[in-house]
Amino acid sequence: MAAPAEFIKFIDDNANKFIARLGEAVAIPSVSGNGAHRPDVFKMSAWLDGQLKSLGVTTSLVDLGKHVMDGEELPLPPAILGRIGDDPKKKTVLVYGHYDVQPAEKSDGWDTEPFKLVVDEKTGRLIGRGSTDDKGPILGWLNVLEAHKTLGLPLPVNLRFCFEGMEENGSEGLDDLIKSETARGNDGFFGGVDCVCISDNYWLNSRTPCITYGLRGLVYFKLTVSGPTRDLHSGVFGRMVHEPMTDLVLLMSKLVAPDGTILVPGVEDLVSAADEEERAIYEKLDYSVEDVNDAVGAPITLSDDKVTVIMGRMRMPSLSLHGIEGAFYGPGAKTVIPASVSGKFSIRIVPPQTPELIEPLVIQYVEQEFAKLNSKNKLKIENLHDGRPWVADYKHWNYEAARRATQAVYRRDPDLTREGGSIPVTLTFAESLGVNVLLLPMGRGDDGAHSTNEKLDRSNFIEGSKVLGTYLYEVGAIKA
Amino acid sequence: MAAPAEFIKFIDDNANKFIARLGEAVAIPSVSGNGAHRPDVFKMSAWLDGQLKSLGVTTSLVDLGKHVMDGEELPLPPAILGRIGDDPKKKTVLVYGHYDVQPAEKSDGWDTEPFKLVVDEKTGRLIGRGSTDDKGPILGWLNVLEAHKTLGLPLPVNLRFCFEGMEENGSEGLDDLIKSETARGNDGFFGGVDCVCISDNYWLNSRTPCITYGLRGLVYFKLTVSGPTRDLHSGVFGRMVHEPMTDLVLLMSKLVAPDGTILVPGVEDLVSAADEEERAIYEKLDYSVEDVNDAVGAPITLSDDKVTVIMGRMRMPSLSLHGIEGAFYGPGAKTVIPASVSGKFSIRIVPPQTPELIEPLVIQYVEQEFAKLNSKNKLKIENLHDGRPWVADYKHWNYEAARRATQAVYRRDPDLTREGGSIPVTLTFAESLGVNVLLLPMGRGDDGAHSTNEKLDRSNFIEGSKVLGTYLYEVGAIKA
Ligand SMILES: [Zn+2]
Ligand SMILES: [Zn+2]
Ligand SMILES: [Zn+2]
Ligand SMILES: [Zn+2]
Repeated sequence: MAAPAEFIKFIDDNANKFIARLGEAVAIPSVSGNGAHRPDVFKMSAWLDGQLKSLGVTTSLVDLGKHVMDGEELPLPPAILGRIGDDPKKKTVLVYGHYDVQPAEKSDGWDTEPFKLVVDEKTGRLIGRGSTDDKGPILGWLNVLEAHKTLGLPLPVNLRFCFEGMEENGSEGLDDLIKSETARGNDGFFGGVDCVCISDNYWLNSRTPCITYGLRGLVYFKLTVSGPTRDLHSGVFGRMVHEPMTDLVLLMSKLVAPDGTILVPGVEDLVSAADEEERAIYEKLDYSVEDVNDAVGAPITLSDDKVTVIMGRMRMPSLSLHGIEGAFYGPGAKTVIPASVSGKFSIRIVPPQTPELIEPLVIQYVEQEFAKLNSKNKLKIENLHDGRPWVADYKHWNYEAARRATQAVYRRDPDLTREGGSIPVTLTFAESLGVNVLLLPMGRGDDGAHSTNEKLDRSNFIEGSKVLGTYLYEVGAIKA
Repeated sequence: MAAPAEFIKFIDDNANKFIARLGEAVAIPSVSGNGAHRPDVFKMSAWLDGQLKSLGVTTSLVDLGKHVMDGEELPLPPAILGRIGDDPKKKTVLVYGHYDVQPAEKSDGWDTEPFKLVVDEKTGRLIGRGSTDDKGPILGWLNVLEAHKTLGLPLPVNLRFCFEGMEENGSEGLDDLIKSETARGNDGFFGGVDCVCISDNYWLNSRTPCITYGLRGLVYFKLTVSGPTRDLHSGVFGRMVHEPMTDLVLLMSKLVAPDGTILVPGVEDLVSAADEEERAIYEKLDYSVEDVNDAVGAPITLSDDKVTVIMGRMRMPSLSLHGIEGAFYGPGAKTVIPASVSGKFSIRIVPPQTPELIEPLVIQYVEQEFAKLNSKNKLKIENLHDGRPWVADYKHWNYEAARRATQAVYRRDPDLTREGGSIPVTLTFAESLGVNVLLLPMGRGDDGAHSTNEKLDRSNFIEGSKVLGTYLYEVGAIKA
């Protein structure tokens, strides 16, 4: 069922107002991974809660307790649970989003202040940290609510919202909340939910909308080598002592090959090759090697074959070295021997890989390789966080509704994709609620989530808001 | 020739006055590496100039021009050139020191205010920034001058002083001054100088005085691998593209082995093994593996053999990996694929190694290894700065004088050491003036120059002043 024309018109007419609201959200630097910004994450929860309430949503802020990060005990930002509509004749859609963001500093290489939304009139880009990940999509839902409230339109479904503030930092506390609420059955917050819709990923490219049925999982490791009790001067101690950086860099070099092959024994073996039906999906995608080159700005794909490259993201595991904590990182030349250095790396995993299978393989391998170094330094390896991979039934009515909504707004078939990233809560919802979970992205593949100059295109924000609203009408109408 | 007893007595009798003067010097925060403190560096030059003049030294403050630091144009602090004595029958000794200091903030972890000299009566420590590096040694010379002036004793040698205020920040301007003055031959400031004495390094330990005849040189490299034009999300692009961190870490792992061996072909080969005579010097040093363990706080020496360990610092090249610019370096977990990453590493070099020999070996090797990776990323390698190593003839009369002076004051043989670090001006004096240069340290190995709670022991300040004075008598008397 198409959304009412007045809904579509309202979204168009109020675009600038919606963008201004996105500016308010971006201005709150709700970085969950940096303790100094924790008050901002709370500020963001209060802001979002206020918005929801003003649009008629009944909310509760659930205290998720405390956690320890970098040796500091911090309060976890609350989960915001919201509900609007309780008509037993309507389907109930659970919407998830996260109001925290990745770290960003102008000095990282941003062209503009990351926490000030810049509207680039020429390109139509809305530039700022969180614009596409995940404040834009959350605000898309607010736009839908505002349209219905202002126009006096009844919502076509009952809505439940679950917004968290720790997604970029392991979604701490949320799983327990979801599990305890689902354990309460129909009395719990998720009682009666028929399907889940999550808008927290991206189109494959910058042209074709998509819906997404798979996600890679993740295991994020911190590999620490410690030696002296303080940083040393390389002039005084160079070639007298085992240097932690030497050991760490050598260990990190043994994790992944330049061609992307994961060198930890047993990790690659778990994954079987794609069959013909699966390959056909990848062949059909509106996608080329050129798209990747354009997105990254350089011709650096691991292969020149389209299907190999896209399978690298969608159905192969990957290992990335993110950086080193504790070493010299500034510009210029500092002749330090760092006392303790921690390599950060993560493995993206696909079915049937699980963190439980991967973690011991990595730990055992790293310890074996470290033993070979005959170093007197100390090794420590930790799993900082992890999440299982997920694949959904893309023939479900929830997907059919999303397909129809996309066709209605964008007048084209969406790509059917799997994502290379992880949104662990997807799996929690799928497993705990036992209902179909849909990923319905708003932004484009070149948005630069987690990167410098993150943006959301104005048209994606506006048309995307229409898709979200239309999707609710399609869910309301479709025969389950 | 022993120094007159009245000189020794004067130093003992006036110890508290000398310490008070050191307090005055420490109270001026002459941090050359921080533009905000530049006026203090000038203040320090005026203070030192006043002291020298009041003690009968003819001085000139040489304007070294301006430089740009952190985008700001700043006047360089003057070099202070001082002269006292012009007796053609006496030898002429050139003394070098620096009146600038390293940055220090109480919040760095100091137990006391860094720019207030604290006299710890229990331990005898004089604690404060610059106490040992290099204000204490400079004031040692003032103490010698004051003793002679007050007692009406003639100095046993002609003295020339060259004090600079930019040593902690690259000695900018000084090399040019030294070269232009030496180019003027006997008419230049350094005309007639017979030897040089620099007191700007440390004993090997906290027990035994030393004299130092060698310094390692340095070549500092920046190795950059660049791929995408911006940072990428590892979920989106992991296993689609060549990741710069993968390439860089692999290259860095091929530079140095965990046992300290430099893996760049040709670098180690340049250095011949120590012969028996040289090994005997290291055997004789008052030094143990325990000393290194104590200094670094953990039992991490590369060898359990004392001579191997000390040769690692004194006569072997070393390669240290300092860190990576451009990668994730903060706490927590960030799933970034950094777009461009620069590994910083440096090689400490010893004769006959020179930057001119080492640089092409490193560049060629790194380029060859990078080619083996079959990566589509781009490589760049730069030499950020370098300095040649230096070894003096420790059988020269200048060293013999220092040895006798140390024996007279401390009643023991000094250790004969080479330093692992570099003091570039040493080489400039040696090469420009063509005379023997001696390093005659005042402080102990645990003084913490460049670190928090920098100190100079009271006994090192007082006995060290006696050593400097006695050294002048020995130089005056020795048959050149
Ligand atoms: Zn997100
Ligand atoms: Zn994210
Ligand atoms: Zn110094
Ligand atoms: Zn220094």
